[in-house]
Amino acid sequence: MKIVLLGSGNIATHLAQALVAKGEEIVQVFSRNLNHAKLLADVVGGEPMDHLTNIKNDADLYMIAVKDDAIAGIADQLRLVTGLVVHTSGTTDISVISSKTEHAGVFYPLQTFSKTKVISFDQVPLCIEATDERQLAVLKTLASKLSKQVYQIDGSQRKVLHLTAVFACNFPNHLYALANQLLQQNQLDFEIIRPLIKETADKVMTDLPENMQTGPAIREDETTLNKHFSMLSNMPELQNIYQTLSNSIKLMSK
Amino acid sequence: MKIVLLGSGNIATHLAQALVAKGEEIVQVFSRNLNHAKLLADVVGGEPMDHLTNIKNDADLYMIAVKDDAIAGIADQLRLVTGLVVHTSGTTDISVISSKTEHAGVFYPLQTFSKTKVISFDQVPLCIEATDERQLAVLKTLASKLSKQVYQIDGSQRKVLHLTAVFACNFPNHLYALANQLLQQNQLDFEIIRPLIKETADKVMTDLPENMQTGPAIREDETTLNKHFSMLSNMPELQNIYQTLSNSIKLMSK
Repeated sequence: MKIVLLGSGNIATHLAQALVAKGEEIVQVFSRNLNHAKLLADVVGGEPMDHLTNIKNDADLYMIAVKDDAIAGIADQLRLVTGLVVHTSGTTDISVISSKTEHAGVFYPLQTFSKTKVISFDQVPLCIEATDERQLAVLKTLASKLSKQVYQIDGSQRKVLHLTAVFACNFPNHLYALANQLLQQNQLDFEIIRPLIKETADKVMTDLPENMQTGPAIREDETTLNKHFSMLSNMPELQNIYQTLSNSIKLMSK
Repeated sequence: MKIVLLGSGNIATHLAQALVAKGEEIVQVFSRNLNHAKLLADVVGGEPMDHLTNIKNDADLYMIAVKDDAIAGIADQLRLVTGLVVHTSGTTDISVISSKTEHAGVFYPLQTFSKTKVISFDQVPLCIEATDERQLAVLKTLASKLSKQVYQIDGSQRKVLHLTAVFACNFPNHLYALANQLLQQNQLDFEIIRPLIKETADKVMTDLPENMQTGPAIREDETTLNKHFSMLSNMPELQNIYQTLSNSIKLMSK
């Protein structure tokens, strides 16, 4: 497929690299910042550009991987294209594109991408949606080339997934950061807690988290809960988090 | 070493198996429930028993791996032994043992153990403490046989580690469970979120979590935060957690 990539951030970069690795062709890379477009085009190929007026009209696929609030503006500039236009957002409705172009879809990778860390794309769940069956089949074929986990997901389910990802990724990472804050204050290195973090995630790869809960809250071990709470007396923010999550653990076990 | 194991739960089981695998000898297994002692002794060797009056006095090491509030009572029954007596608790002071026996120590594995999942013990951080240098050396030698990560940690640091483990393990697991609750309510399978959980933990194996934070809160993306918040309007408990943790993420980035 001839693909025009619109965006040059983490998702655009990881997606483009995965597409090229599977033999797809990036023909143009758009970014508002020409240097960003050039840097990415150097890696994945294609013509770098910072003006949407020069976008080809006859590519097979236009992949909009930009910030949510910039999607509509870009889709608006793609009114004349004949190919399939997709965005990669978890929270944005397909109508933001389908109201402007003939063929619209969504290609949402449910993963956390970072600049520095390589990811094996075949384990990334790809959530696809399209305005018609034919375009859906096109997206399904493409997605299946990249990943073993392809899901047809409608807009409302996709929004739930995006919210769920906050609970499964953003919040746990923040709790790791709070753990590190406690460690640093006590001259302990984050290294000591890494095996525990890894094992906690590993445990839910083959079982469900509700079967794997450990710790003082699930045991209703009030002695330990009180000890922990008073250890946090100088950190009301952490005390609040400790109490909120401990109560929620107790509540779920009822 | 000739080791008397006191306890038959998850930690006792995993520890005993690791010790035997390294050539140590379990000579007795105590549990209040004789059947539990027998079941474990069948696997790791030793004489099963449910009475402390029959405990040998001349073993090298007595390992108390029972619930925190049962440690003192057991230590009290070990007043006549000549070997080293340790407990495996994160929250219990060494004095609970050292006030009763000649040689006391702590042997705290900083990991989450489950009945069903095998764990490679050489990656488990072992936190050791002893009342004198000679016993500390004994524990260090033993711990180093079992694991590559051995830390000499005093009581107050150990208590911080135990608290930290709640933030790094118990709370993230509960957030996985809440994520699954959201998925189930929307006819989505937990399978779809597993790669994200794995990657989130993997990312902090080589970097620090405060450098890895993603999501709407760190971006101060109020549009998405508000969308998520209103999606949880029927679940005040989750709404509270969402707000508490999002605020904490914003606060840390200041």
